[in-house]
Amino acid sequence: MTVKRRDVVKAVTLGGAVAISGAASGAARPEAAKIVHHVFFWLKTPDSIADRDQLIAGLRALARIPVIRRLQIGVPASTEQRDVVDASFDVSELMVFDSVADQKIYQDHPVHHDFIAKCGHLWRKVVVYDMLTV
Amino acid sequence: MTVKRRDVVKAVTLGGAVAISGAASGAARPEAAKIVHHVFFWLKTPDSIADRDQLIAGLRALARIPVIRRLQIGVPASTEQRDVVDASFDVSELMVFDSVADQKIYQDHPVHHDFIAKCGHLWRKVVVYDMLTV
Repeated sequence: MTVKRRDVVKAVTLGGAVAISGAASGAARPEAAKIVHHVFFWLKTPDSIADRDQLIAGLRALARIPVIRRLQIGVPASTEQRDVVDASFDVSELMVFDSVADQKIYQDHPVHHDFIAKCGHLWRKVVVYDMLTV
Repeated sequence: MTVKRRDVVKAVTLGGAVAISGAASGAARPEAAKIVHHVFFWLKTPDSIADRDQLIAGLRALARIPVIRRLQIGVPASTEQRDVVDASFDVSELMVFDSVADQKIYQDHPVHHDFIAKCGHLWRKVVVYDMLTV
């Protein structure tokens, strides 16, 4: 059997990543691969603190969905402004799931649908990034 | 003294957020505010597994910088493709810091400069989002 170099490299990187990650960070217990789901919201009325707070409260309510392993909600940080930094968003939500299947359960969950029904009118733009940790 | 309603709402949301967050997620120990630093890379040669792996290895080496509280590295997940999902990036790095000051220490750290010197030729575009958790 001939194995392409490309496939070998890919396997080494993805398959061996957890152990390498654990060693690099000095962690005793390597973390299993996760789905990191990061959502950025731009409000229709960015100056409205009330709208921002309503969105944040709506996002907090998502914590009731059991498949969410971690939920962090944020606003732009006052880090140094550089060309590569996009600080134009108003609110952000970071979730961690154990698998793509769990992320799908979240997506279809009634509590998530309720959030969209109640808060969907607040934003003009949403960008979602889903990453698989390696 | 007159306090504007806007300021009160803001104070309640930001100041009381940690406790609310802890209650909502059922966590016994509320988490202090953190800086979440999420970086997305688009490679000059997106089809090059070797370039991707070199970038991932470079990012892993950043774990030696002590102010980094969490480091997760990823590639696009195979979640459902929707209009709002940006799955065009090649590699992503998520870091957590205790403060904006720690994020600045990371930014100026020799290990970070070394990473840029060794891997900066690999990407054509970088987007950074910094959020303060509330």
